[in-house]
Amino acid sequence: MPPQMHLATIIAHAPAPHSIGVWRHPKSFNGFRYNKPQYWEHLARTLERGCFDMLFLADTFNLHDVYKGSPSMAIKYGLQFPRSDASLLIPIMSRVTTNLCFGLTANTSYMEPYYLARLFATLDDLTDGRIGWNVVAGFSRSEAANFGRDDVLDHKARYERAEEYMEVCNKLWNSWEPDAVVMDRETGVFADPDKVHRINHVGKYFRCAGPLSVPRTPQGRPTIIQAGASAEGTAFAARHTEIHFAVRASVDGMKSHRARLDAALAAAGRKPESVKVLWGLTAILGDDEASARAREQAMMARVAPEAGLSLMSGHLGYDLSSLPMDKPLENIAISGVRGILDSVISDFGPEVTLADAGRRYGCGLAGMRIFGNPRQIADQMEAAFAEAGDGFMMLTTDYLPGSVDEFVDLVVPELQKRGVFRTQYEPGVMREKLFGAGAQ
Amino acid sequence: MPPQMHLATIIAHAPAPHSIGVWRHPKSFNGFRYNKPQYWEHLARTLERGCFDMLFLADTFNLHDVYKGSPSMAIKYGLQFPRSDASLLIPIMSRVTTNLCFGLTANTSYMEPYYLARLFATLDDLTDGRIGWNVVAGFSRSEAANFGRDDVLDHKARYERAEEYMEVCNKLWNSWEPDAVVMDRETGVFADPDKVHRINHVGKYFRCAGPLSVPRTPQGRPTIIQAGASAEGTAFAARHTEIHFAVRASVDGMKSHRARLDAALAAAGRKPESVKVLWGLTAILGDDEASARAREQAMMARVAPEAGLSLMSGHLGYDLSSLPMDKPLENIAISGVRGILDSVISDFGPEVTLADAGRRYGCGLAGMRIFGNPRQIADQMEAAFAEAGDGFMMLTTDYLPGSVDEFVDLVVPELQKRGVFRTQYEPGVMREKLFGAGAQ
Repeated sequence: MPPQMHLATIIAHAPAPHSIGVWRHPKSFNGFRYNKPQYWEHLARTLERGCFDMLFLADTFNLHDVYKGSPSMAIKYGLQFPRSDASLLIPIMSRVTTNLCFGLTANTSYMEPYYLARLFATLDDLTDGRIGWNVVAGFSRSEAANFGRDDVLDHKARYERAEEYMEVCNKLWNSWEPDAVVMDRETGVFADPDKVHRINHVGKYFRCAGPLSVPRTPQGRPTIIQAGASAEGTAFAARHTEIHFAVRASVDGMKSHRARLDAALAAAGRKPESVKVLWGLTAILGDDEASARAREQAMMARVAPEAGLSLMSGHLGYDLSSLPMDKPLENIAISGVRGILDSVISDFGPEVTLADAGRRYGCGLAGMRIFGNPRQIADQMEAAFAEAGDGFMMLTTDYLPGSVDEFVDLVVPELQKRGVFRTQYEPGVMREKLFGAGAQ
Repeated sequence: MPPQMHLATIIAHAPAPHSIGVWRHPKSFNGFRYNKPQYWEHLARTLERGCFDMLFLADTFNLHDVYKGSPSMAIKYGLQFPRSDASLLIPIMSRVTTNLCFGLTANTSYMEPYYLARLFATLDDLTDGRIGWNVVAGFSRSEAANFGRDDVLDHKARYERAEEYMEVCNKLWNSWEPDAVVMDRETGVFADPDKVHRINHVGKYFRCAGPLSVPRTPQGRPTIIQAGASAEGTAFAARHTEIHFAVRASVDGMKSHRARLDAALAAAGRKPESVKVLWGLTAILGDDEASARAREQAMMARVAPEAGLSLMSGHLGYDLSSLPMDKPLENIAISGVRGILDSVISDFGPEVTLADAGRRYGCGLAGMRIFGNPRQIADQMEAAFAEAGDGFMMLTTDYLPGSVDEFVDLVVPELQKRGVFRTQYEPGVMREKLFGAGAQ
C-alpha cells in the first residue's frame, strides 16, 4: 500500500472559525447554530464518513483591540469573537463517532497544569483514547488582560514555562502505573497504593504534589500537537510534538520547513517518522479552476477590509488604521510591518492594496491555496503529498457545515481512488491510528 | 395545587460518589463504568423519567492524607479518589434529556474567573439553560498542594475572595446586552459594539478586562447553588444562592437552619422564597423498615473502618489513627475532635466505637435517614417537606446506577400520588423551572 495521507480540519467554537465572512454566506448554518450540539454532531459525523483523522479545535481568550485602539471592529464583525469553550464539544461529538479523533487547543499560560492534566485524562477516558492536545503558550496582551496580567511573558520565558508545564503534566499522567487499579469487590481494595505515586514537583514556575486523580487512561496521555514556528517553538515541537501543524504557501516551503524540523528532531534524539506534519491547505472547489477562483473572490467580498485589518493589526501588534487603504502596499514604507506587507505582496502581487490585504487576511486565505474541480483538487493534494508528506489541515471554508460535506462527498472519493487515502480507519487509540498498533 | 417538592441527587465522577463501598456492591456498575458515557446517559435518562429537578455533581481536587500522614488508605479504598472532570459529563447527559438540570461544583480557588465564567456560559448554551453552579471555595491543604500553594487561604479570606470572584463572573455574564447580537448577513454586522462592554474589573484578588467571549446565554447566568453553613458561608448564600443545600438530621434542625437562612436573606434584602433549600436525605428502601435497616447494615459492612476514618481525619484535619478502634467513643477524650465524636454519639448512641464511626462516616450516612418500603419512605418525605419545605438532595446509595432506578420506579410514583411531586416538568430554563416563568 502506498503511503497514506492524513487529513484534519480546523474549526472553532465560534460563528466564524477561520474566515470572518463564514456566517454571512447564504448557505451557512441553515438549520444549525454554532453554539448548539446539533451542528457539532453533524460536523463530526460528516468527517467520520470521510475517514478524516481529526477535527481540530482552535481556541483563544483573545479579543483583537489594536486596530484604532479598540475592540469595536472585532465585536462588530465577529472577529474570532465570540469564542465559547471548545472542550465541552468533544464529549458530544464522541457519542456520534467511533474513530474520529479530536485536537483541542489549550493554553498553558492561565491555569495550573493539574487542572489541564485532569481535563485531558477525562477526555481520553470519555473518548476511548481519541484526544490530542494542541499546546499553545498564548501570545496576546488582550488575552492576558482577562487573566489579571499586564502582559504576556516574553517569548523565551513563555516556552520555558510551557516546557515545565509539559513536564508536570507528563509526571501526572504517569503517576498511576498501568496496573494500579485492582477494584476487587471481595477485599474492597480499589487500587494498590504502591503503584500510585506522588510527583512532588517543585520547579521554577510550578509546584504540584500529585498524584493525578484519574487512573491511567486508554492513551496514557493525549497525542501532542504543536504549531510553533519560531526557534523556541521548533525546539519545543522537537521534544514533545507528535503532530506538527505548519502553514507554508509552496511545496518548496514545506520541504525546507520539514528539513528544519527533522534536524531539530535529530538534535532531540527523535526520528523523523515520530512526527506527522499537517500542512495548512485552502482547497476551493468549483466546476473548474475559474469558477473556484470566482468562489474565492466571493469569499473576499464577504469580508470588510477593516475587519481583516483588525485581525492583522492584532497579530502584528501594530495599528494599521493610520495607513491609506487604497494605495498599493509596495508604496507604503513603515518600519516594523514591512515584513508582513512583503509577504502579502509576494502572495498576491505588487498591485495589492491595504484594503485587498485586509479582505484576504480576514478570509484566512493561508497555506497552500488550490482551486478546481474535485479531480483537480485531488491531483494537487496528491502531488504535494508525494513531495512534502504526511497530510493536510483544511483551513478556510466559505460556508459551514456544508462545505465540509462537499469536500467529503466529492474530494475524498477521488483521493481514495488514487490509493493515497484510507477507506476505513485503523484500529486503536489516536496514537496507534497515527503511528501503528502498540505506539506509545 | 399543593406545594411541590424539589428533588435532586448528588453524584460524582468517581467509582464511589458518596458511600465508599458503592463499587463493591454486587449489583453496582453491571455493564457500566463510572468513567464512560453510557453510565451517565443511563443516570440522566432515569432521573428525567422520575421528573427530578437536578443531577448534582460533587467535585474536589482533594486526596485525603491526614490519616497516618499518608494518602495510602485513600488510594487503597478509592476514597473520593479517583475523581475525573465532571464538567465534561454534562454535554453528554444533556443530549439524552430535555428538562433535567445539572448542578456542577466548581472551585473559585484555583483558576481565574474568566475561565469559569466562559465554561458555565458555554454549558448554559449547550444545555439550553439547564445549568447550575455549586460555588465552593476549597478547604483542603492537599488540594492546594496540587495547585502550587502551601495552604488554603484562611476561612474569612476565602469567602472574601469568593465574593469578588462572583462579582467578576456576574460582570462578565452581563457584559453582552441581551440584544447585542445582530448577525445581519446583508451588512456583515455580527454584533453591536455599543452593546458589548469591557468590565475593567480591578479588585483585591482579580483584574479582568472583559467582555466575556460568549454572548448572553439562555439563562443569562447559571443558577447559583451553595452549601456553606459557617457564618461566612451563610452570608455568602444570602447574597448569591438560589438553591441552598444543607444537611440536618432532624426536621427541627432543618427548621432552625431555615430560620437562620431567612434572617440572613432578610439582612441581604432578599425574600425567603428567592432560595430553595434542598435537605440532604438518606432514604433506604426495603420491604419494610427492618429490611431497610438491614440494608444499611450491609452498606456499612462494605466499608473498612480505616477507610471511613481516613475520610473523617481528612475532614477534621486530625489523624484519628492514634485512637483505639474498639473502645466506645464516649470514653475517648481528645480535645479538638470532641465535637465530631459527640455528634456521632448523638446520631448513633453511646455504645458506638471508633470503628463503627468509621464505617458509618465512610458510608456517607448523613442528613435525615429514613427507612422502609416505598410508601413509608414517601410518608416520611411528605411529612418532612410539610414542615421544612422545599425539597431533598438524595445522598447515599448502596449501589449504582440501579438504586436510582429503584427510587424513581418505586418512591416517585408514591410522591406523585400524594400530589406533592410533579408528573411533568415546568417549562423554561432552570431558574424558571424553580421560580416560575420569567424568573431572572
